[in-house]
Amino acid sequence: MNIQKIEGLIAATFSTFDKEGNLDLKHIPYLVDKLYKDGLKGVFVCGTNGEGPNLTLNERMQVAEAYVLAAKGKLKVFVHVGHSSIVDAQTLAIHAAQIGADAISAVAAFYFKPLHTENLVSSIAKIAAAAPDLPFYYYHIPALTGVGMDMVKFLELAEEQIPNLAGIKYTASTLHEYQACLNYKSGKYDILFGYDEMLLSALALGAKGAVGSTYNFAGPLYLKVMDFYANNKQEEARALQYHLVKMVRTFVKYPPIPAQKAIMQMLGIDLGPCRLPLEVLSENQRDMLEHELKEENFFHLLNRYIE
Amino acid sequence: MNIQKIEGLIAATFSTFDKEGNLDLKHIPYLVDKLYKDGLKGVFVCGTNGEGPNLTLNERMQVAEAYVLAAKGKLKVFVHVGHSSIVDAQTLAIHAAQIGADAISAVAAFYFKPLHTENLVSSIAKIAAAAPDLPFYYYHIPALTGVGMDMVKFLELAEEQIPNLAGIKYTASTLHEYQACLNYKSGKYDILFGYDEMLLSALALGAKGAVGSTYNFAGPLYLKVMDFYANNKQEEARALQYHLVKMVRTFVKYPPIPAQKAIMQMLGIDLGPCRLPLEVLSENQRDMLEHELKEENFFHLLNRYIE
Amino acid sequence: MNIQKIEGLIAATFSTFDKEGNLDLKHIPYLVDKLYKDGLKGVFVCGTNGEGPNLTLNERMQVAEAYVLAAKGKLKVFVHVGHSSIVDAQTLAIHAAQIGADAISAVAAFYFKPLHTENLVSSIAKIAAAAPDLPFYYYHIPALTGVGMDMVKFLELAEEQIPNLAGIKYTASTLHEYQACLNYKSGKYDILFGYDEMLLSALALGAKGAVGSTYNFAGPLYLKVMDFYANNKQEEARALQYHLVKMVRTFVKYPPIPAQKAIMQMLGIDLGPCRLPLEVLSENQRDMLEHELKEENFFHLLNRYIE
Amino acid sequence: MNIQKIEGLIAATFSTFDKEGNLDLKHIPYLVDKLYKDGLKGVFVCGTNGEGPNLTLNERMQVAEAYVLAAKGKLKVFVHVGHSSIVDAQTLAIHAAQIGADAISAVAAFYFKPLHTENLVSSIAKIAAAAPDLPFYYYHIPALTGVGMDMVKFLELAEEQIPNLAGIKYTASTLHEYQACLNYKSGKYDILFGYDEMLLSALALGAKGAVGSTYNFAGPLYLKVMDFYANNKQEEARALQYHLVKMVRTFVKYPPIPAQKAIMQMLGIDLGPCRLPLEVLSENQRDMLEHELKEENFFHLLNRYIE
Repeated sequence: MNIQKIEGLIAATFSTFDKEGNLDLKHIPYLVDKLYKDGLKGVFVCGTNGEGPNLTLNERMQVAEAYVLAAKGKLKVFVHVGHSSIVDAQTLAIHAAQIGADAISAVAAFYFKPLHTENLVSSIAKIAAAAPDLPFYYYHIPALTGVGMDMVKFLELAEEQIPNLAGIKYTASTLHEYQACLNYKSGKYDILFGYDEMLLSALALGAKGAVGSTYNFAGPLYLKVMDFYANNKQEEARALQYHLVKMVRTFVKYPPIPAQKAIMQMLGIDLGPCRLPLEVLSENQRDMLEHELKEENFFHLLNRYIE
Repeated sequence: MNIQKIEGLIAATFSTFDKEGNLDLKHIPYLVDKLYKDGLKGVFVCGTNGEGPNLTLNERMQVAEAYVLAAKGKLKVFVHVGHSSIVDAQTLAIHAAQIGADAISAVAAFYFKPLHTENLVSSIAKIAAAAPDLPFYYYHIPALTGVGMDMVKFLELAEEQIPNLAGIKYTASTLHEYQACLNYKSGKYDILFGYDEMLLSALALGAKGAVGSTYNFAGPLYLKVMDFYANNKQEEARALQYHLVKMVRTFVKYPPIPAQKAIMQMLGIDLGPCRLPLEVLSENQRDMLEHELKEENFFHLLNRYIE
Repeated sequence: MNIQKIEGLIAATFSTFDKEGNLDLKHIPYLVDKLYKDGLKGVFVCGTNGEGPNLTLNERMQVAEAYVLAAKGKLKVFVHVGHSSIVDAQTLAIHAAQIGADAISAVAAFYFKPLHTENLVSSIAKIAAAAPDLPFYYYHIPALTGVGMDMVKFLELAEEQIPNLAGIKYTASTLHEYQACLNYKSGKYDILFGYDEMLLSALALGAKGAVGSTYNFAGPLYLKVMDFYANNKQEEARALQYHLVKMVRTFVKYPPIPAQKAIMQMLGIDLGPCRLPLEVLSENQRDMLEHELKEENFFHLLNRYIE
Repeated sequence: MNIQKIEGLIAATFSTFDKEGNLDLKHIPYLVDKLYKDGLKGVFVCGTNGEGPNLTLNERMQVAEAYVLAAKGKLKVFVHVGHSSIVDAQTLAIHAAQIGADAISAVAAFYFKPLHTENLVSSIAKIAAAAPDLPFYYYHIPALTGVGMDMVKFLELAEEQIPNLAGIKYTASTLHEYQACLNYKSGKYDILFGYDEMLLSALALGAKGAVGSTYNFAGPLYLKVMDFYANNKQEEARALQYHLVKMVRTFVKYPPIPAQKAIMQMLGIDLGPCRLPLEVLSENQRDMLEHELKEENFFHLLNRYIE
C-alpha cells in the first residue's frame, strides 16, 4: 500500500442527535462545510469524540455515510470501526469500504484487553483485513482503553501482519515514543498526533498531521500555530499554543465531550445532546464555561484567525 | 418487585463455537444437563466468561435463546445484556424478556466510564427499564470495567430509580462492602457473590447465592463446601475450599477463559475456541495445565463428589 | 527458628505526640494497659497506623523503647522497621533486638519499588538478617507501597533466604491468596490478617491471629466475633462483624489515621495530633464522626462487650 | 526572593559507592569536573538518580557536602531533601543551607501521600521553611511518588505559603501542564524540565533549563540539541534528539539507574554499585547494553560532540 501521509488537521468530529437523543444527521453537511472552510483536511468519524462506542452498528453506519456524502471532494473521511467485538468491527470496516471512506481506524478491544503486543496485533490484523484496500490506522489511546503497549514494537509486528497498515492515531503524551514511531524505518508510517494541547511539542519532533476533537472549533488557531512553527516564528507559535492550552484546561474541568458540544453550540452549531453515560452540561455549567472562555479571550482570538 | 433470592450456584457459562469460531449451539443442551445434574440453580449467559462483549448482538440473542430453550424447567437463566452502547443493551434486555429469560444483568459502560454513582445509576436505570418485568442485577466487576463505585451508595440511589432492581452480581474481593450490601435494609436485595475462590469467606458473611465461571466444572465441590459450612464442619469446608483455591491459582497462570474452556475439554466437553483477543491455549499449555491439575488431585476430587 | 504463632489480636498502635507535634511518650503505658485489659496479645509499633514513615530514626527508637518497657510481661511487641533506606531499616532492626522486642516486621521499599519477587526477597532478607534472632514478619500492604507480589511465591523464595522468617502481616483483600499462604507447607508460617473489617472472612479460612489499627479501640468486639465464630455461633458472629464494618465505613470517609486518633480521644485517650501529610480532623469533622458512630450505637456496643 | 532562572542543563547526579556498597566520595570531584567541562550548569544531588531514598540522613549529608565542595565556582548545587519524614527533610534542608548549597528541592511525601493540593502545599511548605534563604524547587515526579496533583494549582497555593519557592522540577510527560506552569504569571517561576528524552518538545514551549539523569553522560549532545533549536535548525535538532530517544529506549529495557551507572562505567567512570532494591546489571546485561549502544553509534556520536 502506498501510504499518503496527512499534512494538516483532521477533526475527530461529533455524532449529532435530536433532543430525544436519536440521530439527527442534517447538521453534518453544515459541519463539514465549516471544517472545510476552516482549512481542515479531514474528519475522523465515530471515534471517541464521535461517541462511536455509544452508538449501535446501524447508527455508526448512518453517521459514516452522512459524513462521506457531505465530505466528498472536500475532506478525507476516516471511519473509526473499533468495537469490543471484532466481528462487529469487521462489519463496520467492510461498510466503510463500501461507502467510499478514505481510511479506517480502530482502538484495541477494551473489555477483554490484549495481554501483549502480539495479541494486540493479531486482533487488529483481523479488523484491518476486512477492508484490505483501505489504509488502516491503529488508534492508540491508552487512557481510555487501558491498552498501553509500546508503539514501536507494535509497528514492528504490524508491518508483517497488516499489509494495509498506514499508521497510528497516537493519543498519548509519551512524545519520545511518538518521535520513535515517526522515525520508524525513516518515516515509513503516518503517525498522526492526537493530543491537541501538546500539538506544538509534536511539531517540534516532525509531526505533520494531527487528529483531535478541538479542531472542530479551534482549527484555525492550531493551523496558525503550525504556520508560525513552519516559518520559524517560535515565540508566536508558543504564545498561541498557550492560548489553546488554557482553552483545553478550561473545558476539561467539565466532562470533556459534552463540554465541547457546548462550545460548538456557543459558536452557533447545535449538535444535540450526548448519550449516557455522557451527560450534557447543566445550564449553569454551560454559562460558567462560556464565561471562562470569554475571560481568556478565546472567542475573540478565534474570530481574529477565522477570517 | 418481589425479589426471589437465589440459594445455590449459578454457572457463568460459556459461549460455544465451532473450529472456525462461528457459533455452534448444539453443545448447549448437553452443557445445561450437566450443570443441572451437578446441582446448579442457573446459568448466567453472555457475561464475561460467556464472551458477551466478543459477540455481535445477533449472536448474543442466539446464545441466550439456546440457553433458555435448554434450561426450561431445570435452571434459571440470567442474560447479561451489558454493552458499551446503552441502546444495544436495551435491545438485548427487550429480547431477553421476549424469550422468557428469568433475569437480566449488565455491567457499567466500559468505554466511557460513568464518572460518579449518580451517573452510573442513571445509565443502568435506562437498561433495566427496557425489561421492566424482569429482575435486574447490576454486575459489579471493577477489575474489568474500571468502574469501582461503592455498592452501598449504588443501592441507595438505584432503589429509587430502578423499580426492578433485584440485586448485584458482586465480583470483587472487597468483602466488607459485600457484607454491607447483604445487610442493606435488612437484606432487601439479592447480592450474589462472584469471586469463586473466596466463596467460603462470603458464606461466613451470610452469602446464600453465587455466580461464577468455575461452577461450570467444579460446581459439586463448591456445593460440598456450602454443605460443610451449613453443617458447621468448618475444617472440612476450608480444606475443600483450599483445594479450589489451588485449582484457580493453577489455571490463572494461563489466560483464564481459554484455560477454563480447556478444563471443560479435559472433562470431555469440547466447547470450541475463543474469540480474539482471547486465544486458546497452545497444545503445550493445555498439557501443562492438565498435568498440574492432576498433581493437585483435582480430577480425582471432582469424581469423588460428582456422584 | 521455632515459630510461635499468634492466636488473638495485635493492635497496630499509634505514635503519641504533644500539641506541637513532638513525641510525648507518657501516654504509652496507659494505652498498653488498656489494650492488655481489652484482651489483646500484642502491639505492632511504628507501622502505618503508628506513622513510622513520618518519624525520624531516633523517634522510632524512642517509641519502640517506650512500648517494650510498658508491655513487658503483658503484650508482645512487634517493631516495624521498614524504611525507604535498607540501611536505616537495618539500624532499626538491630535496635529492636537490643531493647528486647519480640519480633520485627518491614514493608517493601516504597520509593524504589522491588521489580520482581526475587528482588523483593533479596531486599527484605538484608533487613531480617540484621536481627537474626528475632522472628521476622513481612508486611504486605500493596495499597500503600504499590508492591503487590504474589505472597505464596514470596514464601517459597523467602523460606530459603530468610532463616528467621516467621510469617506475613497480610494487609490485602485477596483472601484466596491469604488462604494459600495459611496452608503453605501445612501451615509452616504465621500469616497474620491485617484487614480488620474482613476479619470474620479470614477466620472462616483458618486465621488465628490478626494485626490491625481498629483493635486499638474495638478489640473486645472483634474478640467477641472470634469467640462467636469458635463456638459455631455464625449468626451472632456475622451480626457483630457487620457492626464493625459499619464502624469502619463510617470513619474511612475521613482520613483514616486521624479519624482513628479522634475515636481514641472520644474514648478519653488523647494521643495528640498526627504528622503532615496527615492532618487532624477539624472540630466539625470530629463532631460529625462522633455523631455518626453514636447513631450506629458503636459506643454503646463497645461498652457492652468491654466488661 | 529574586528568582534566578537556570538556563542550561543540570545533571541529576549519582551517589558513589565502593564495592561493598559503602559511600566512596573520592569520585565526586572527578565527576564534577567532567560535568563542568561538558558545559553543564549544575548538579542535582541525592534525588532519584542519586538514590537519596536509599541513603541514611548522614550519608545524604556527606554526599551533599562532597558535591558542594567539588562544585564551588563551577556548578550550582541543588540538594534534594525529600524524605518520607518531613522532620528528616527539614534536617536535610537546614544542612544544605549550612554547607552552602545553591538550592533545595523535595518530592512529595511518598508513603502517606498528600490527598489534595492544599495538603501537598502545607507539607512542602514546612520543608521549604527550614531553609528560608535558599530557593526551593518542588520535585514533581508522579510516576515514582504516586502524587500527581495539577501543578498550576500547586503554584497558585504555594505562591502564598512558600516565600522561597523558586520553581518546579517537572518530571512528567504532560507538556501542556508544563507549558501552563512556564507561563504562570508571565513566567514568574523557574520550571525545570525533567524528562530528558522529551527535551526538544519542551524547548518548543519555551523551556530554558532542565534537570535529568542522562545529562551525566550525554550532556554535550543535549546542549547541541538546544543550540540547534536556538538557531532554528529544526531538522538537525530533531535528528539529534531522536538519537537520544533511541539511547534512552535502549537502556530503559534494563533497570534505569543501574543501567546508567553501567554507561558511566563504559565511559571510564566507575561509580560503584547501587543499593537494594536497585541491583547492578549482570555482566551479560552490561555487555548487551554496550553492544546495543554501539550499534546505534551512541559513543561515536558522543565523541563527536564532546570536543
